[in-house]
Amino acid sequence: MQKKHNEIYVRSKIWLEVEGKPLLGGGRERLLQAVERTGSINAAANELGISYRRAWSQLRDLENIAPFAVLERTKGGKGGGGARLTPEARDLLKGYESLVRGLRAEVDRRFAAQFPTSDKG
Amino acid sequence: MQKKHNEIYVRSKIWLEVEGKPLLGGGRERLLQAVERTGSINAAANELGISYRRAWSQLRDLENIAPFAVLERTKGGKGGGGARLTPEARDLLKGYESLVRGLRAEVDRRFAAQFPTSDKG
Repeated sequence: MQKKHNEIYVRSKIWLEVEGKPLLGGGRERLLQAVERTGSINAAANELGISYRRAWSQLRDLENIAPFAVLERTKGGKGGGGARLTPEARDLLKGYESLVRGLRAEVDRRFAAQFPTSDKG
Repeated sequence: MQKKHNEIYVRSKIWLEVEGKPLLGGGRERLLQAVERTGSINAAANELGISYRRAWSQLRDLENIAPFAVLERTKGGKGGGGARLTPEARDLLKGYESLVRGLRAEVDRRFAAQFPTSDKG
C-alpha cells in the first residue's frame, strides 16, 4: 500500500521579550485588544471567556515587565472599573499587530518558494 | 525614581507540521543535522547529550509523521548501527534550514523598522 503523501505546512510564532521574559505574544495581544475594545478588564475577560482574576494577573505580569505603564485605570463602577491602554501600550500593540501580520505573509511566501512541491490544499 | 527603559526585542519560532502534528522544528533539526554529520544515531545522541533511547524515539515520531522515509539504516556495528538521511529527508532539512535562516533575518529587519525607538544594545 502506498503511503499517502500528506501535506507539509509551516507554522510560526512571533513574540516580544524584555530581559528574557515574555512581553507580548498572541495571548496578551488578544487581551489588550479586548481591553481596548471594551474599555474594561472585566468586559475583556468575559469576551475572552477567562476569569477577571486571570485577566488581571496577566495584565499585572505585563505591567511588571513593560518598560512603560500599560493601563490607565478609571476607578468606580462595578466589575473592577474602567481601563484603557496608555498611548505607549497602544503603540506597542499596533506595532506588534503589524509585525505579525507582515511576517505571517512573509513566512507563507518563503515557505511556498522553499517547498514548491509540497501539496497545496 | 525613573523606571529603567529596558530593551524590547523580538523572538520567533518556525516549524513544519503535517496534519496538525509537529514535523520539524529546532529540536529535530539539530538531531537530523547530528545524524547526518556523524552517520549514526548513537553518535548523534552522544553529541547532543541525550540518550540513544530518546534520540531513537524522536526519530521514530518523525518517521511516523513524515510523508516519506527519513532514515536509511545500516545494520551491524556496535551502538545501534549506522544511519543516514534519505535524499527526501536531506531536502527537507536543507529547505527548513534555509527557511529559518532567511526568516530570522527578515524578523529582525521588520522588527527594527517597526520599533525604531527601541534600544539597540
